[in-house]
Amino acid sequence: MLSKSKIKLIVQLKQKKYREINNMFIAEGTINVLDFLQSDAPLIDLYATKDWMQLHQMQIKNLNSTIVTTKELKKISALSTPSDVIGVFSLPDTTFSGNIDTDNFTIALDNISDPGNLGTIIRTADWFGIRNIYCSNETVDAYNPKVVQATMGSLARVKVHYTNLKDLLESRPDNLPILGAVLNGTRITELKTQSNGIILIGSEAHGISKGLLPFVTQKITIPSFNSDSTNGPESLNASIATAIICYALKSGIGE
Amino acid sequence: MLSKSKIKLIVQLKQKKYREINNMFIAEGTINVLDFLQSDAPLIDLYATKDWMQLHQMQIKNLNSTIVTTKELKKISALSTPSDVIGVFSLPDTTFSGNIDTDNFTIALDNISDPGNLGTIIRTADWFGIRNIYCSNETVDAYNPKVVQATMGSLARVKVHYTNLKDLLESRPDNLPILGAVLNGTRITELKTQSNGIILIGSEAHGISKGLLPFVTQKITIPSFNSDSTNGPESLNASIATAIICYALKSGIGE
Repeated sequence: MLSKSKIKLIVQLKQKKYREINNMFIAEGTINVLDFLQSDAPLIDLYATKDWMQLHQMQIKNLNSTIVTTKELKKISALSTPSDVIGVFSLPDTTFSGNIDTDNFTIALDNISDPGNLGTIIRTADWFGIRNIYCSNETVDAYNPKVVQATMGSLARVKVHYTNLKDLLESRPDNLPILGAVLNGTRITELKTQSNGIILIGSEAHGISKGLLPFVTQKITIPSFNSDSTNGPESLNASIATAIICYALKSGIGE
Repeated sequence: MLSKSKIKLIVQLKQKKYREINNMFIAEGTINVLDFLQSDAPLIDLYATKDWMQLHQMQIKNLNSTIVTTKELKKISALSTPSDVIGVFSLPDTTFSGNIDTDNFTIALDNISDPGNLGTIIRTADWFGIRNIYCSNETVDAYNPKVVQATMGSLARVKVHYTNLKDLLESRPDNLPILGAVLNGTRITELKTQSNGIILIGSEAHGISKGLLPFVTQKITIPSFNSDSTNGPESLNASIATAIICYALKSGIGE
């Protein structure tokens, strides 16, 4: 049974302001909840249907959980189609420590505003073994329920940091490549084999900010292989561009 | 000035049923509207702010257009943030003619349900010069406003067909490859150079249907290059997987 005050709290957690005040976020759906249960983010509350609890009793034993009805889940869900389980977790610290991951590729996001794009980028990073994403402070919050949903559990594994990207790029080690996705750079099919660097992705509407472009050590472009260049799209979706660049860089180094 | 009956009609066009009854769909935003104006889909009505009309008078001269206020646009928009222009166009015929495009790669979508995914796949296809997408009848409608929005004008250039995919795959020429995206196929980094074939993508939740798998001539997989295979994501987003496969196939053949 869900109290009115709990319902109010969980519904408020859809908003960044209340996530920060309460230091909590919500993860919905089996994959997201189980993946966060395996992460460092402590569980605060778990709400699920009786059937879900029975099916996952091994994973949730000794945890603070409440059986709720589908109707109750609908009241607290941030999704149009609520799932069978919602977990309330402690909000991880997203402050950038100042240490850039130089062992691997990382991704820097310059004002990505669409929650689906950010979530998909986090999921894709996870697939390609990229462990750190640096977001500008204006980028949509990674713990927005729509972002969490789109990550399909990957937010439990990929570390997302928020910071001033200019400061971060200024403080990077001299030899760390900054690969900036632009429309007139080196074709990614022609990139030299490399094993680390920051992949810098600009916003959906404006690309990489003017203030960050001078830090780019290599401008890169996804070729279209489209012979009719006069009648085509202007660009790719930001999450698609990120994914193709990650694939090209990772497949270039072989295994 | 927008009449009540026009408002009602345009709002109804968010639903597939009314798009089919009226044989119309709506495209919002400058890129979408201008790209459809250059396509074969005849314009029925154009609604835009005074500023938009002045800025684009060359493109819309002699067209049936109405100046509306931002408040009126908000009433008819399918978006949470309405743009300055909405076009009502004749609904293109999406019936599959029976002729498969064998000169190029094409994409077959087996029950893609998310409008953002379908729109992004159409946009990506356009980028890579893929001209035809075959959708199962259960795939979300390409003229759904959320799909149109995500295509960013590409739906005006890429032909989307709806059909029974089993019949389509059965009727294909014997030598046309069917490349099925699965989790245990040949790594796409190891594919032979090829220049045509159907890229078959399964649904977000269930992958390629059992009934279609026997038609796949080559099972293909996107490698993760992730050394920790025990603790990673189960899959990639469907539109991301499609994009990486398109890039791998297109970059394999060079130019």
